[in-house]
Amino acid sequence: MKDVVLGIDIGGTYTKYGIVDRDGNSLYESFTSTSKYNEFDAYLENLHVEFEESMETIKEKVNLAGVGIGAPNGNYYRGTIEYAPNLNWKGVIPVVDKLKEYFKDIPVVLTNDANAAAIGEKIYGSAKNMRDFIVITLGTGLGSGIVVNDELVYGHDGFAGELGHTNVKLRGRQCGCGKKGCLETYVSATGIKRTVFRLLAERISSSELRDISYNELTAKMISEAAGKGDEIALEAFEYTGRILGAKLADAIAITSPEAIFLLGGLAKAGDLIMQPTKKHMEESLLPIFRNKVDLLLSGLHETNAAVLGASALAWKELG
Amino acid sequence: MKDVVLGIDIGGTYTKYGIVDRDGNSLYESFTSTSKYNEFDAYLENLHVEFEESMETIKEKVNLAGVGIGAPNGNYYRGTIEYAPNLNWKGVIPVVDKLKEYFKDIPVVLTNDANAAAIGEKIYGSAKNMRDFIVITLGTGLGSGIVVNDELVYGHDGFAGELGHTNVKLRGRQCGCGKKGCLETYVSATGIKRTVFRLLAERISSSELRDISYNELTAKMISEAAGKGDEIALEAFEYTGRILGAKLADAIAITSPEAIFLLGGLAKAGDLIMQPTKKHMEESLLPIFRNKVDLLLSGLHETNAAVLGASALAWKELG
Repeated sequence: MKDVVLGIDIGGTYTKYGIVDRDGNSLYESFTSTSKYNEFDAYLENLHVEFEESMETIKEKVNLAGVGIGAPNGNYYRGTIEYAPNLNWKGVIPVVDKLKEYFKDIPVVLTNDANAAAIGEKIYGSAKNMRDFIVITLGTGLGSGIVVNDELVYGHDGFAGELGHTNVKLRGRQCGCGKKGCLETYVSATGIKRTVFRLLAERISSSELRDISYNELTAKMISEAAGKGDEIALEAFEYTGRILGAKLADAIAITSPEAIFLLGGLAKAGDLIMQPTKKHMEESLLPIFRNKVDLLLSGLHETNAAVLGASALAWKELG
Repeated sequence: MKDVVLGIDIGGTYTKYGIVDRDGNSLYESFTSTSKYNEFDAYLENLHVEFEESMETIKEKVNLAGVGIGAPNGNYYRGTIEYAPNLNWKGVIPVVDKLKEYFKDIPVVLTNDANAAAIGEKIYGSAKNMRDFIVITLGTGLGSGIVVNDELVYGHDGFAGELGHTNVKLRGRQCGCGKKGCLETYVSATGIKRTVFRLLAERISSSELRDISYNELTAKMISEAAGKGDEIALEAFEYTGRILGAKLADAIAITSPEAIFLLGGLAKAGDLIMQPTKKHMEESLLPIFRNKVDLLLSGLHETNAAVLGASALAWKELG
């Protein structure tokens, strides 16, 4: 019987999950809604039902050996999600304890979603031989997983790696966390959308984006417009890359990684986001760090990177 | 015979050194000029002569077991000082190799001056029981030593911990490193002096600082003026604390330390710098980090903190 783990990636809108073997092969993968559940208990019950159904579809005989969870504001030490700005569930959610009610004798481990992605990059991706690297997830928000001396940085309270809430502007954009001017309000799928809307207000150039409402607009539409030469879209990528580049330079000055990996919705824009980010990152670096740090797209397949990361976390725990 | 080490702290203006035993007792301590030597070889020869003279003054029989050096842009892996903006010696200086010509069979180890201070804080100071903390040195420039999981963060190239060159303003003050807007151009003994001069230009309030030239002005004079209620001086501390507080909040979001220690010339201002820094740090923190991170003055005596740090580095190497 083959050992497998359940990898769960809790995002603001969707939860992705997969049943993954030790080599990183996904035997089953699906997703369910996060945002439509106002109560964590109801969300979890649905997730567990879906998991049990999924196990029945797997032809091989498998044994569930562990559960790994990546979640926004996930605390590795306590197994909790705490005050996550992009989730409906407020306060402190004892996620691991609640899952243990369903998965009695099986190890359940949780971390920040971007930390999980960093473990996935190390075990299954492009960071296999690296001891110092950073993974940045550009989704609804901006997450980061930081590896120093071959270990994830958790910090004294388990919350390290919140690059998305570093400060860009003193009286900048309102953030879901309650502060103003956080990096993720500028650099994320949502951030670039906000930039497009500011530019639509400030510029008079025509743009196909003038026909799309705020709620309809996606990072993908902005990429497509930029691909067709839309000035507003191109300026939005340049602006996003400038802010991200300067903040990556700051992170490099602190931990001096070998490489920085980008993944998530906005990273799918490829060169549109990579080129301005790389240019401004190099300009903002102390000379001793220049042309030393690779800025790369994640080596994990976009569709299941986060699930693979959560699975890798479970396998790491199992040893 | 008692084992001792030579601890050397290379600063932009002065080099401090001491002969220190394993318990952190300083048997001899003195200083010499850094800035008047345009050639590293001449500087080193003088330092070695002074060291030999100092050994003769020690009454006990001692055995020199190691040499530890803290230096700006010091590279632990390579034993070099590389492109230090505040030193006369340009390019890459093979400091450890050159010292080995004088100290043949004795271990010589070098790191960034602020990294040395962090090791000193851990071994002799207030961070004895901490696994995650940051030390900030506020002298001519701003240095930082970052400890994560009980280990100094060196990064993949040995240059991690350059918080002084993170980016405050896109087109900000010219920095010695060649960039503009680096943190140390605002927050350091030199940085607050530059702020005072900007404020003297912008404000019309009377100030005793209007009688002092740029080259004469020191951080101590600014502290004294602030202590007497001088508006310009007080505003300079508020401004400095605002910028430092926001950047410390960023560093906390990345490594989540238990405490941050300040030391060096500007830290001697005490509450004048601590209060605005603490206030703005808390305001700029993601809520999950608030009221968790202690902002403290270094537990090492100011006069020999850096020398103790360099000595601690040598003792750490000796095991």
